[in-house]
Amino acid sequence: MAVLVVGTVTLDTIEMPRKRVEDVLGGSGVYATVAASFFECPVRLVGVVGADFPHAYTDFLHTRGIDLQGLERVDNGRTFRWGGRYAEDYNVRDTIFTELNVVADFHPVLPDVYRQTPYLFLANNPPQLQLSIIEQATAPKLVVCDTMDFWINEEREALEALLARVDILILNDSEARLLTGDSNLMRAAQAMLRHGPKRVIVKKGEHGAISITASSFFSAPAYPLTQVADPTGAGDSFAGGMMGYLASVEDTSEEAIRSAMVYGTVVASFNIEDFSINRQRRVKFSEISERYQQLQEAVHF
Amino acid sequence: MAVLVVGTVTLDTIEMPRKRVEDVLGGSGVYATVAASFFECPVRLVGVVGADFPHAYTDFLHTRGIDLQGLERVDNGRTFRWGGRYAEDYNVRDTIFTELNVVADFHPVLPDVYRQTPYLFLANNPPQLQLSIIEQATAPKLVVCDTMDFWINEEREALEALLARVDILILNDSEARLLTGDSNLMRAAQAMLRHGPKRVIVKKGEHGAISITASSFFSAPAYPLTQVADPTGAGDSFAGGMMGYLASVEDTSEEAIRSAMVYGTVVASFNIEDFSINRQRRVKFSEISERYQQLQEAVHF
Repeated sequence: MAVLVVGTVTLDTIEMPRKRVEDVLGGSGVYATVAASFFECPVRLVGVVGADFPHAYTDFLHTRGIDLQGLERVDNGRTFRWGGRYAEDYNVRDTIFTELNVVADFHPVLPDVYRQTPYLFLANNPPQLQLSIIEQATAPKLVVCDTMDFWINEEREALEALLARVDILILNDSEARLLTGDSNLMRAAQAMLRHGPKRVIVKKGEHGAISITASSFFSAPAYPLTQVADPTGAGDSFAGGMMGYLASVEDTSEEAIRSAMVYGTVVASFNIEDFSINRQRRVKFSEISERYQQLQEAVHF
Repeated sequence: MAVLVVGTVTLDTIEMPRKRVEDVLGGSGVYATVAASFFECPVRLVGVVGADFPHAYTDFLHTRGIDLQGLERVDNGRTFRWGGRYAEDYNVRDTIFTELNVVADFHPVLPDVYRQTPYLFLANNPPQLQLSIIEQATAPKLVVCDTMDFWINEEREALEALLARVDILILNDSEARLLTGDSNLMRAAQAMLRHGPKRVIVKKGEHGAISITASSFFSAPAYPLTQVADPTGAGDSFAGGMMGYLASVEDTSEEAIRSAMVYGTVVASFNIEDFSINRQRRVKFSEISERYQQLQEAVHF
């Protein structure tokens, strides 16, 4: 089955303590579709770029088999640019600049062939935009959304309307605390379930992720890396890997979602070993399977 | 087999956002022995109290079957007192006061019957004191030590001498980073292994714990609690529960240590549900087994 990702396609400037890169391929839509493309499923991307977006980048996405019919190119526009700077411990990130450019006026209309996509991942975007995608989808089997602090603070009402329409909400621990005002993650997750999603997945960075439903609790380990080059895109790689796996097995059971979260964790672990999607260019599926098995061994008792 | 715990026995004043308690039973030696006493093994305590230490507290420790021959009572002394205050999210703790009192001049001599104890837990103490216990032990099978930021900063040389003599170092994530100067926990653990211990266990509070040896990695989940009353003693309950389990099964294999860490996690989860050791007074072993099984289910994929 197919996965549809609606997210950003950006040119990123990243400053790490010992390296800086400029205008590299990034964005939630890119990280999520590249992650999903490791699994046996059609992957579709909805996003927007400007006339300045390098053809080499679209060529790369094509080589991954990603369907780009939904990637709009605005001829007189400029691509979304984001700049971020990480502190020495990689956990603290400052945004240096955000140039929305073509994203500011983006109101995506799904290509007809995309409307029936069963697996929808709505990466971080204005909640109104995320909702409009749900309304255009005709046969969603699983709707998963991400969000961020900005929308929690500025668009809470629209966000709550969105949460009533999704199956799974994915967000990070600080966002879960911000959304609910509760510092206890289990209580925060329970509060979020009351807004509508059947499942809440909380990403905790180097501490793994947890999944909560009304009747289940899953604790997914982090992959133990000794070298981190750039954490940008880890969360979207996690979600994209998860969606790709679920679509490939055509299963949304508790068991499948647990496996999917661990596959997402593994794809994200590769992502952060290099800048942009450079590490993913070289990853073989056998390496993904190997890390998956290592994690299975790492939690066994 | 028996467990020997060398640690503090204190009267604690704890200020939580919505409750304050004064002069309650606390200390690393208390939390660790009470935790170990849930398992089928003799438990021995070495520590010191003053004349003011309530007999009700020693009576309680006796009812747990804890051997108190090594608990010295200084007739003209005053018990160690500690005061701590927690912020709203329970993760930040400020020390309000520390009165060492009788602990300041404590140089423990092991009772003869204690010297052959196979399982030694050296809770947080000056590293010189911890070393002196190792030197008095005649047949240790497993030596486990804890430490804290104060000794890392002030007694690094003695601490490194200690680390060369222990099998397992247990410490929390911020201490691991402080000791090694490395923010990456995997690299920090590898650096600590080079100081001597065969295994490093890093406690991560609400994110569980990890164990690293030269050839293994284990990620233990946290127990998902929705109500936390007082986190004081969680780390010592974890270590004590771990030691009690290992002594009861007479096994120090990787497999046994993984189970032991999860039993320690469960005992610690009960500990933080009430102040002091109040929750432990009412816990049945069947409840410990139940949470152990829940954690097994929570990590399964």
